[in-house]
Amino acid sequence: MISQLIVMKPVGYVRTQALGDEVKDRNRTSEIIVQPEMAAALNGICEFSHLYVIFWLHEISEEERLTKKVHPRGRSDLPLVGVFAVRTNQRPNPIGLTVVELLKVEGNVLMVRGLDAFDGTPVLDIKPYDPWDIVKEPKVPHWWRKLEEEKNQKKQTEP
Amino acid sequence: MISQLIVMKPVGYVRTQALGDEVKDRNRTSEIIVQPEMAAALNGICEFSHLYVIFWLHEISEEERLTKKVHPRGRSDLPLVGVFAVRTNQRPNPIGLTVVELLKVEGNVLMVRGLDAFDGTPVLDIKPYDPWDIVKEPKVPHWWRKLEEEKNQKKQTEP
Repeated sequence: MISQLIVMKPVGYVRTQALGDEVKDRNRTSEIIVQPEMAAALNGICEFSHLYVIFWLHEISEEERLTKKVHPRGRSDLPLVGVFAVRTNQRPNPIGLTVVELLKVEGNVLMVRGLDAFDGTPVLDIKPYDPWDIVKEPKVPHWWRKLEEEKNQKKQTEP
Repeated sequence: MISQLIVMKPVGYVRTQALGDEVKDRNRTSEIIVQPEMAAALNGICEFSHLYVIFWLHEISEEERLTKKVHPRGRSDLPLVGVFAVRTNQRPNPIGLTVVELLKVEGNVLMVRGLDAFDGTPVLDIKPYDPWDIVKEPKVPHWWRKLEEEKNQKKQTEP
């Protein structure tokens, strides 16, 4: 069973004008173009404020998929951790998972905020976010909090 | 691009003694057996209290993958909604996504609480849950709140 191959087809793809690091900007909006024949599968989705977008990191090479450990954000001052312990895109199955805010639905197009995926990224699934997905006080490692603090400090010192 | 095939191999599988509806019991513990050669990818994961488990609903048929709309929980008194607007397992790409509590790591085995997957389910990816995954007040439809209220009432009337 463990050696079986699992085959999927994209249900849509991402459309964005963001380039490079711009995709990490959580205030950015982008679109998900769902395959027209699947538009009916979006029925009622507008009643949710937030969604999970599951996408395929199609630019990750076969070699990168063999990576077992990385330094978070490639920073050698942070501990070397397993790829399952960090949200790196170097993973055996390079699946992306992001919580986005749903802004608008028009036919087979979703407009969302906060999707950190490049233009043309294949989308594998879309799921509604609900209160069961909230963990009140998740425990995270020291390196995670350190990165977060740095980000906040940078924000404060920006003009 | 939209017609490309995406191929994955499981990174592990679920081991549980829960049968049928027992897997929905959020207090149940189960194990994730990661492929032994990927054990290093778990390094440092124990510093997170919660994880996302992304798994493959391998018992969903090709026909079920064509479903566009369902009644939540199969209940005809609830509105017919698109499969992307509900966490049904009948989806074009039958991917499961669950937030679990990480209880213990032993070599290539994770013991977790709250994984609603059957014994033998292939696991596609494991990701740490962090505070960015928290949505403070997600908006959900009326049918979702109705199901939740019924569940709570049932709990209160059980001996």
